[in-house]
Amino acid sequence: MKSVIDPLTQLHTLLNANMKTLNGVLLTCLKSEVSLVSKVTEHLVKAGGKRIRPMLTLASQRLFGELKQDSLYLGVAVELIHTATLLHDDVVDNSNLRRGLETANILWGNSMSVLAGDFLFSRAFQSMVAAETKGVMKVMADALALIAEGEVLQLAQSQQINLDYDTYLRIAESKTAVLFDAACKVGGMIAGASVDQCQLLSSYGRNLGLAFQITDDIFDYFPSDNYGKKPGEDFFEGKVTLPIIVALKTLVDTKWLKSLFEPNAIRTQADFKRVCTLFAGGGVFDACVDLAFSFAKVAREAVAVLPPSPIRNVMEQIPNYVVARVVEHCMAVPFSAQA
Amino acid sequence: MKSVIDPLTQLHTLLNANMKTLNGVLLTCLKSEVSLVSKVTEHLVKAGGKRIRPMLTLASQRLFGELKQDSLYLGVAVELIHTATLLHDDVVDNSNLRRGLETANILWGNSMSVLAGDFLFSRAFQSMVAAETKGVMKVMADALALIAEGEVLQLAQSQQINLDYDTYLRIAESKTAVLFDAACKVGGMIAGASVDQCQLLSSYGRNLGLAFQITDDIFDYFPSDNYGKKPGEDFFEGKVTLPIIVALKTLVDTKWLKSLFEPNAIRTQADFKRVCTLFAGGGVFDACVDLAFSFAKVAREAVAVLPPSPIRNVMEQIPNYVVARVVEHCMAVPFSAQA
Repeated sequence: MKSVIDPLTQLHTLLNANMKTLNGVLLTCLKSEVSLVSKVTEHLVKAGGKRIRPMLTLASQRLFGELKQDSLYLGVAVELIHTATLLHDDVVDNSNLRRGLETANILWGNSMSVLAGDFLFSRAFQSMVAAETKGVMKVMADALALIAEGEVLQLAQSQQINLDYDTYLRIAESKTAVLFDAACKVGGMIAGASVDQCQLLSSYGRNLGLAFQITDDIFDYFPSDNYGKKPGEDFFEGKVTLPIIVALKTLVDTKWLKSLFEPNAIRTQADFKRVCTLFAGGGVFDACVDLAFSFAKVAREAVAVLPPSPIRNVMEQIPNYVVARVVEHCMAVPFSAQA
Repeated sequence: MKSVIDPLTQLHTLLNANMKTLNGVLLTCLKSEVSLVSKVTEHLVKAGGKRIRPMLTLASQRLFGELKQDSLYLGVAVELIHTATLLHDDVVDNSNLRRGLETANILWGNSMSVLAGDFLFSRAFQSMVAAETKGVMKVMADALALIAEGEVLQLAQSQQINLDYDTYLRIAESKTAVLFDAACKVGGMIAGASVDQCQLLSSYGRNLGLAFQITDDIFDYFPSDNYGKKPGEDFFEGKVTLPIIVALKTLVDTKWLKSLFEPNAIRTQADFKRVCTLFAGGGVFDACVDLAFSFAKVAREAVAVLPPSPIRNVMEQIPNYVVARVVEHCMAVPFSAQA
């Protein structure tokens, strides 16, 4: 698998010229007369990831024709919203590292991170206003509202050991799936795609986002050098995620696991290792991966109905690739779990 | 003066039915499936002030005819943006009281305040999207960007003793004047007023906002029971505001005053009393009030050109009233300072 170019890289290659233009628009958007604002936002651009969200907007639009200016505005807005929520999340979670770099709250303090996040939201808003396609603003506004509510839900509930699967899913949606959904849907709207086609893109984004978030939550318990996430981050913060929910349902003796997530419980490195071993052997990993693949399947089938093109072919491969990564890195899963 | 009904109350009476409708829309906007969100936002509504900003939107629109639905959406958006920035400000300033009630960051923690602020921004955004008047979104987006940049500027610079008048004014604009400006301007746009008329409303809002902010900054050094602001708040936080800037320019011996705003300087109640006495007697108060009246005059003259009506008459009186309040409460000023 390693010798083949992965579909995310393929998509980036297909959209290379468009992504360069988008990066230019993004940089212009981040400029500010206030020099400290520029300094903080430059750091964020450097620390920025693969820009998968704006890439999905461009890809969704390009499924139906040549690049339209509004895709750039919306793609930039999507990336700015994503970055703003990360800034505020790092304050809320008191994080100190993201993708191997010190977080803004560590470098400039919590106050600056709160205000810089607000600045990014305001720039996202300006960028959206520049788009003239009818209806895209409402899609983005509704997405943002769901994201903001979900953040509160996460803060209030994610550290409770009795967190149920539905609430976990609602949190995963607002953390990742809602923005993926909007990113894809507005791409279709900008292209003038039909209501049904936009709905398929919406479903693609949402289910890909869920597979993405579940995979991220699995990685927490399967340390991997290649992924860039600090192992055990959720565990040590006491965040209840899918592996814990599955474990509580499937394991026979859950008393010890429950005790680790009681208020004020102390979680040691030894506890973490024991949990990881338990999850790998007890079918927890398999069950989580199965679930991630089931969302990936829905995503793949949604985009498969859209007009064929090299971009669509690559978009079809992305959901399974995202989940297969976790399988490859963690090794402990039988291949029968793959859809 | 006390026996006469003040113009803010008069305006509220004139717009009473519209304001009731607006409050209903505001409450609907704050509803959330996530119960903690509702709890926090309910507290904010209770702690809410006089809703002067949405009242200005309604008044500006009603200058040109009957109420339009878009005014409600925009007025609500303006109030939500105002409340969201207060929530984030209280986190940044580590405040514990606002209008006599404990702040949200004290009641629910900083994390919840950051996320509840984001929720309010997202609802503001949804409310704006509901409006169909062309161009209002851009006015609001640009205002929000200026506000967010100004907040960073304030965080970076307001505690520096060499803060100059221009930077002070830029901070005062983003703290108050920019949103007052947008609140009034979009009212005119919704009503279908001419570009010139909208520009006059913009000028009215901006200059009223500046007079409002300067007055607020004066009050910090002139304790008053009737104003609801804790005396010396800016002083004890080490924030350099207009009275300090004026004092440094006009007083002969400024060494002691400067030393109070050095990094890590300790400011005692005795220091505060001494500064207050110095300001009252040394012409500092007079100079600040003069400046506030000069902005009030520009605001009054801008609105005076618009079509006459009971609402316009009251709008004309508001700027001077806002500044006269400080004169009345603080007493130490000669009446010649009034414009």
